[in-house]
Amino acid sequence: MHHMIDTSTREAVVMAQDGEHPTAGELRIWRDYIETAEALRSEIAARLQSDSALSPGDYAVLLALSEEPGRRLRSSDLAAAVGWERSRLSHHLRRMESRGLVWRDECVADSRGAEVVLTEAGARAQREAAPSHLRAVRELFLAALSPEQTAAVRNVTATLRASLDAQSGH
Amino acid sequence: MHHMIDTSTREAVVMAQDGEHPTAGELRIWRDYIETAEALRSEIAARLQSDSALSPGDYAVLLALSEEPGRRLRSSDLAAAVGWERSRLSHHLRRMESRGLVWRDECVADSRGAEVVLTEAGARAQREAAPSHLRAVRELFLAALSPEQTAAVRNVTATLRASLDAQSGH
Repeated sequence: MHHMIDTSTREAVVMAQDGEHPTAGELRIWRDYIETAEALRSEIAARLQSDSALSPGDYAVLLALSEEPGRRLRSSDLAAAVGWERSRLSHHLRRMESRGLVWRDECVADSRGAEVVLTEAGARAQREAAPSHLRAVRELFLAALSPEQTAAVRNVTATLRASLDAQSGH
Repeated sequence: MHHMIDTSTREAVVMAQDGEHPTAGELRIWRDYIETAEALRSEIAARLQSDSALSPGDYAVLLALSEEPGRRLRSSDLAAAVGWERSRLSHHLRRMESRGLVWRDECVADSRGAEVVLTEAGARAQREAAPSHLRAVRELFLAALSPEQTAAVRNVTATLRASLDAQSGH
């Protein structure tokens, strides 16, 4: 049926396809967005490492566990809390366990995985890391933005997340 | 002189310190911002890899070179264009050279490094990757945002970048 598309329709199709190509200015906004977020993440991670010898992943795990009343979580729930795949979390926990920050209670393992338990050393590491980490987040992100800009970040982030989840099938 | 600070001053100090601690809501905005940018970067990277067998780093290098009239750049200028440290770029270029995407012209090396030259295969790889990569950027980022939201991203990103550069001494 392709030959039956008249010229104006075909032009509309071509224009729609052209419309899919971002302008140089739009691409600049995209690249700046991604690069700035990555630079911020990297600077915060560097400060956390140098102040507290923790990676952002370590900190996220310690924080999630410290917020639980029993200081323990099923590994599946912990994976959901920090937003990682189970396999990535498992590798990470093995290293944290060897440093004495957590231990894995295999006795209570079921399909949701063993329970991950915060050690006293892990709780202390999180407590000691928190003040300078929170200060870094404030200095580099929150204090840099006006209330309107902070609201705009929240709004835009929610929109991008919803679109991403819809398109990547989550 | 510490004992001479009166109560109201001390309270003001404590309040200022407390003021440095983000609220739970502010931390949520920060984490969502970083996690959403990372999820977008990751989804775009996955599509680029699956559609074109290129990493975002490969693509950035190929694009920077393809935009040069002579399709060549000093490695120091290329590092600045893609925003990497020289050592990271050097490792990356070695792998790209082994795949025939670029070659390094050591004959013109000076303190700014050798020149990096785009090969015909590299130029073709960039050309072939561009349409689906640009479509992904449009679908996942630009098309998801209203014009006002796109303007807000540009504005917020510029503010965060300026603050970051000021505080990390760039």
